[in-house]
Amino acid sequence: MEVTFSALKSLPMIEPGDNLVEIIIANIKRNGNTLQNGDILVIAQKIISKAENRYLTLSEITPTLRAKEIAEEVHKDPRYVQAVLDESIDVVRKKPGVLIVEHRLGFIHANAGIDQSNIQHPDSDERLLLLPKDPDTSAQKIRYAIAAQLDVDVAVIINDTMGRAWRNGTLGLAIGIAGIAPIDNRIGKNDLFGRELKVTATAIADELAAGASLVMGQTTEKNPVVLVRGYPFPNKTALETGTPPLIRDKAQDLFR
Amino acid sequence: MEVTFSALKSLPMIEPGDNLVEIIIANIKRNGNTLQNGDILVIAQKIISKAENRYLTLSEITPTLRAKEIAEEVHKDPRYVQAVLDESIDVVRKKPGVLIVEHRLGFIHANAGIDQSNIQHPDSDERLLLLPKDPDTSAQKIRYAIAAQLDVDVAVIINDTMGRAWRNGTLGLAIGIAGIAPIDNRIGKNDLFGRELKVTATAIADELAAGASLVMGQTTEKNPVVLVRGYPFPNKTALETGTPPLIRDKAQDLFR
Repeated sequence: MEVTFSALKSLPMIEPGDNLVEIIIANIKRNGNTLQNGDILVIAQKIISKAENRYLTLSEITPTLRAKEIAEEVHKDPRYVQAVLDESIDVVRKKPGVLIVEHRLGFIHANAGIDQSNIQHPDSDERLLLLPKDPDTSAQKIRYAIAAQLDVDVAVIINDTMGRAWRNGTLGLAIGIAGIAPIDNRIGKNDLFGRELKVTATAIADELAAGASLVMGQTTEKNPVVLVRGYPFPNKTALETGTPPLIRDKAQDLFR
Repeated sequence: MEVTFSALKSLPMIEPGDNLVEIIIANIKRNGNTLQNGDILVIAQKIISKAENRYLTLSEITPTLRAKEIAEEVHKDPRYVQAVLDESIDVVRKKPGVLIVEHRLGFIHANAGIDQSNIQHPDSDERLLLLPKDPDTSAQKIRYAIAAQLDVDVAVIINDTMGRAWRNGTLGLAIGIAGIAPIDNRIGKNDLFGRELKVTATAIADELAAGASLVMGQTTEKNPVVLVRGYPFPNKTALETGTPPLIRDKAQDLFR
């Protein structure tokens, strides 16, 4: 088996209101390529958020007393902390320099995934970029628009850079999914020797998101869309899709 | 940028004492390919462990009282629990069906990575397969042997399937590394707009391990070696290598 991760070349900077699907399709055509059934597009969260105008202006945020108290503890701007809290259900851990929350979408994410770097604006220090409002829906819309225009069924994964427990360094992980099951569930299937495999539930959407992250590089502005070709995933349309299966139920999570 | 993950075709089953490097080089030649400087080989832990004869026979293990007590709590064979404890520094979490430990190598790993499935033996229920004794050294030996025989500098990553906090499904992650920095550390480098990136330390070895896992498939016996080509990583020889930088210091880990 051979799987190829290719960055789309020379995409323009994305601005609020941009039609990402048009831009992606035009780019692929310009580079003499085409989309095929079974292709997977992995798209950096940042450009989805930009196209959806998920900006906030720091100076327009009024922090609550709670945000001010947390900001003092974690050494962050109270207005930034307010934005993080507004995107979150719960604070999971905090210490100086660290604010880890349960995002309203269910992800455990430092700073609710709100980023200040790589935002193109003269006074970018003043702007924040939130995660997309509903990344699964964003992914599904892109998938449907591509199907409508090119008559191909591609899967779409929106990835973001996330930290994790126990290990240093971030990984690209899936925050929005359409057209592919997030988990390849082989519990109970037989292994090569006919012995029952007890638990093999592979987070394939996260593995795809991580592999694509390598090609995006550090500044995802440069290569924010990655075409994955050659990965055979089963029966796309019938599968449970979207990110919810990736999120461990709070009651089952030993590390909250 | 384009990165390709290719599984080596039709590798034989690996037995204790097998010379993995000879087998891999012969396989690549037979398939009309060759290794190049900058290639990365991702190798499934299981075949490293097999070649290194890291088997234990369940019937030869005598569980301690502590292993018996934990076994009762987690509903596992006390001899299996004893093997897990023998490979571990500490029990991190346990509940029925779940035993998460700090492996002696530093990884937080369910069952210390000891696996019972996919072990080729008539009475495979009776055999356990431990992680390699020192996976970084195993990776380095393979790297050096390839350099000696083919005069190419390849990086080697040994990966294993691991669970994580907060999210369901396993990922392929790096447990042994040679010839590539585990983390691409861009803290303080400028982003596209000259603004200082605050924290971007990407666990590239884990992203490579995860991408390779897709190609290995569920039963890593089938495709246990993946050649990664096209990923430009900096200056291989001068880098800090091995897995220690991936392991978060216990005192800094908010999720122990």
